[in-house]
Amino acid sequence: MTNNQKINAGRFFEHFKLNEVIQHATPRTITAGDAALYIALTGVRNPLHCSAPFAHALGLDNAPVDDLLAFHIAFGKTVPDISVNAVANLGYADVRFLRPVYVGDTLSTSSTVIGLKQNSNGKSGVVYVRSTSVNQNQQPVLSWVRWVMVHKKDLNAAAPETVIPDLPAFVAPAQLCVAEQLSLKGFETQATGGQYFWEDYQPGERINHPSGMTINDSDHSLATRLYQNNARLHFDAHMMQNSTFGKRLVYGGIVISICRSLSYEGLENALAILAINAGTHANPSFAGDTIYSYTEVLERWEIAGRTDAGALRLRMVGIKNTAPAEIAAIKTADGYHPNVVLDLDYTVLMPRKGNQ
Amino acid sequence: MTNNQKINAGRFFEHFKLNEVIQHATPRTITAGDAALYIALTGVRNPLHCSAPFAHALGLDNAPVDDLLAFHIAFGKTVPDISVNAVANLGYADVRFLRPVYVGDTLSTSSTVIGLKQNSNGKSGVVYVRSTSVNQNQQPVLSWVRWVMVHKKDLNAAAPETVIPDLPAFVAPAQLCVAEQLSLKGFETQATGGQYFWEDYQPGERINHPSGMTINDSDHSLATRLYQNNARLHFDAHMMQNSTFGKRLVYGGIVISICRSLSYEGLENALAILAINAGTHANPSFAGDTIYSYTEVLERWEIAGRTDAGALRLRMVGIKNTAPAEIAAIKTADGYHPNVVLDLDYTVLMPRKGNQ
Amino acid sequence: MTNNQKINAGRFFEHFKLNEVIQHATPRTITAGDAALYIALTGVRNPLHCSAPFAHALGLDNAPVDDLLAFHIAFGKTVPDISVNAVANLGYADVRFLRPVYVGDTLSTSSTVIGLKQNSNGKSGVVYVRSTSVNQNQQPVLSWVRWVMVHKKDLNAAAPETVIPDLPAFVAPAQLCVAEQLSLKGFETQATGGQYFWEDYQPGERINHPSGMTINDSDHSLATRLYQNNARLHFDAHMMQNSTFGKRLVYGGIVISICRSLSYEGLENALAILAINAGTHANPSFAGDTIYSYTEVLERWEIAGRTDAGALRLRMVGIKNTAPAEIAAIKTADGYHPNVVLDLDYTVLMPRKGNQ
Repeated sequence: MTNNQKINAGRFFEHFKLNEVIQHATPRTITAGDAALYIALTGVRNPLHCSAPFAHALGLDNAPVDDLLAFHIAFGKTVPDISVNAVANLGYADVRFLRPVYVGDTLSTSSTVIGLKQNSNGKSGVVYVRSTSVNQNQQPVLSWVRWVMVHKKDLNAAAPETVIPDLPAFVAPAQLCVAEQLSLKGFETQATGGQYFWEDYQPGERINHPSGMTINDSDHSLATRLYQNNARLHFDAHMMQNSTFGKRLVYGGIVISICRSLSYEGLENALAILAINAGTHANPSFAGDTIYSYTEVLERWEIAGRTDAGALRLRMVGIKNTAPAEIAAIKTADGYHPNVVLDLDYTVLMPRKGNQ
Repeated sequence: MTNNQKINAGRFFEHFKLNEVIQHATPRTITAGDAALYIALTGVRNPLHCSAPFAHALGLDNAPVDDLLAFHIAFGKTVPDISVNAVANLGYADVRFLRPVYVGDTLSTSSTVIGLKQNSNGKSGVVYVRSTSVNQNQQPVLSWVRWVMVHKKDLNAAAPETVIPDLPAFVAPAQLCVAEQLSLKGFETQATGGQYFWEDYQPGERINHPSGMTINDSDHSLATRLYQNNARLHFDAHMMQNSTFGKRLVYGGIVISICRSLSYEGLENALAILAINAGTHANPSFAGDTIYSYTEVLERWEIAGRTDAGALRLRMVGIKNTAPAEIAAIKTADGYHPNVVLDLDYTVLMPRKGNQ
Repeated sequence: MTNNQKINAGRFFEHFKLNEVIQHATPRTITAGDAALYIALTGVRNPLHCSAPFAHALGLDNAPVDDLLAFHIAFGKTVPDISVNAVANLGYADVRFLRPVYVGDTLSTSSTVIGLKQNSNGKSGVVYVRSTSVNQNQQPVLSWVRWVMVHKKDLNAAAPETVIPDLPAFVAPAQLCVAEQLSLKGFETQATGGQYFWEDYQPGERINHPSGMTINDSDHSLATRLYQNNARLHFDAHMMQNSTFGKRLVYGGIVISICRSLSYEGLENALAILAINAGTHANPSFAGDTIYSYTEVLERWEIAGRTDAGALRLRMVGIKNTAPAEIAAIKTADGYHPNVVLDLDYTVLMPRKGNQ
């Protein structure tokens, strides 16, 4: 007597209703174990996340965990409800890092359906959700929009009214959140090893980060499970043998984290992520791929009320199996170069000169 | 001057004496690092083990660690003394989870020899031990029986009197331990994402869990080392090249943990393991295998003195490299189907309806 | 507009100045997550590092982390400044473990250039540095000398005056540091499972440790990243395809840790490392290699002012893909046997008899 009704098959396109609020399962307490694993999985060297005295010197009570660790954990909670039946993750926008996340904080995530558009083939549609993660004090720590293409289960289900949300091209400087207690007046380059400040980065400048990192099967499996992201295509090699790819796909968040870690060489003082403005996983990544990255400086913004720090809007491009300098153009008329795996527009916090 | 006397070669069959008590080495303090690694190794999403506020809402002082993490760590301590010369792990019985284990607890394990039977070939014998793990306050947290076949070293050693312990087919409902302070009156399905309660599961019902998880070499090595289980066949690929299998074997506990994690989809509210009644590793698993599982509901028991929770006795079957629905019969006249890797009879705690 | 000036290319030979002090980046707070990962990566079973009650019984406030975990983390910080352009790590000397490192301690590392010698080819030179790691109270916890061969970037740069530091063949017994509060009067063999004391080990004695451990790609990548050691040859398989080796090299510290963990069988009571006297990575290791080890007892020293513990000077030899007993001579006229990967001279603390 097999009873598959007990299995939550996840929402299909017709199940999403505009303005519906979905509370995701598995509230998650962040621990010192998560933070150590994140270092082991990415090699990040930013002292803000691994040195309590460094964080204290900047006015914080403790070292916050890496912004992307918090993001991946918060994001992972949305997968069973939002994207388990997704054909494709189409994009991110308006990702805001609102408040530092500390060891001991518990994150709970919910999503609101903010847009729906059935595809013209009638077989699938695009769902837009704004997700928010709050800590145990109900303070929002992260907020983001993503849109995914989801299959319909019942092809006869009526198409919903098309609503496409108005999304910003980037998070405006006035909306960037920097923790009030954080003061970069106590910042010393000795702790990061980086000599360059906000003023030193020029829009248009490109930095080829010199290191590469090869993804091992265990690395990405461990990370994706740590985030409790249960999308099957990352874990089930037997099932994936019969897919287009023939093997497990690497969760896109893994690539973002590797690129961010590699970008430390050249961006040592980019202490925190304030926003992700837009992101595209241009091509899939697999175990065995070696990831490289380069960064373009897009904009340099002052932050209202702050003379100790400014914001840099950056474009971080991830490339697999070839050095960034080898690729003349990452985009052609046909789309992305096949070795490009990530095109991420994001904003970081960086100390300004003369405060030290 | 090589001195191999310093090497503890472990006990052979003739070294085990009935009623002997063996105190195992390496008391082990459980940390937040262990708990995070367990999530990374298995992908478990049960909020009882990863959300402090969820545990508080149910009356506990903190989130206990996963039952199987505690079991594997406690069990690992017995390996150097009990099974390092084992030919085969023949079975488990009467595994009782007596008390939650928290970060900061230190587990110490001892075993008592409760049965001995020399094989008729005179070359090996079966040893039955009851092992108990206590915390730093000497409170028992886990107790279990296992039996293993162990080589004789001295074939001339006299056979011991045959004693076969009387083992229960399952841990009786009256003997199940639920933490007194735990109250499921505060349980909310929102935290687990599961809508089904104790009353909803019917004996005879079968649930095919939809996800699969491929075992990577590093995954099982990391886990088995975390448990400080030093059985060589899991680690030494050079030695195992010349074995029947030609490669490292995956520790059976890894398969139990993966199946338990996969079974979350369909058993979201099975909050805690109360007992393992019996278990068989039907076939070996290797790195590269993809594990699937299904669950049969065997019995539904009330728990004395509790209206907030009941117990379900379940049969969890682990299958490799094929979906559960593909296998008509897991057992034939010749024994287990070659893709079946686990047949585990265990008992879980589940909230009852109407308490929320 | 690519700007590679932002990339810190690391020091070349001509950039090192005698007596220069280099403060390394990334102060690092040690956490329970690091300690758990170290167990998962190595399988260490020494109760001093994993049992708080065991540490308390010996007079310590808490369980210190494994000596080699602290060493690898402290060492990793020196890589970007000292060895990122190294042709070869030539050796270690005078490595002293000065003070236990606890969870919550933050390590900061600096190095002083104590020797320089340009090679006769004019293209590279040898740099000697003494590195010291201090905790958050500025107490030194580790100090060591290493020397590396580094390329010149500007072949016309003048050769520095040759200065070769006077290095001890071993750390003298009088200079070994044992934590004052540590008392082995409370030591019980039950916790380690080892029956042999300081008095039982004889100079000249050799112990073949029976277990082997196969290195997986993820294992060594995770560990090396945990230590924030960013030497590219451990991570970048794409780059290494074109190297002599054709693949990633395993960080030598991984091999030291595996050998130390394997040596537990036969040296169960070697509770702490007091010094590393000298070390050579005789041949490279790669993922897939199975590591074995044996130990020779070199010297047995009393420790001034202590009747509870003594020191043993040991030679730990790491061998890949063949059992130690299979190799007749690890060194021939041509150098090391190709299966020898480590030759380490180090000193451990061991309880003496009659104190218990």
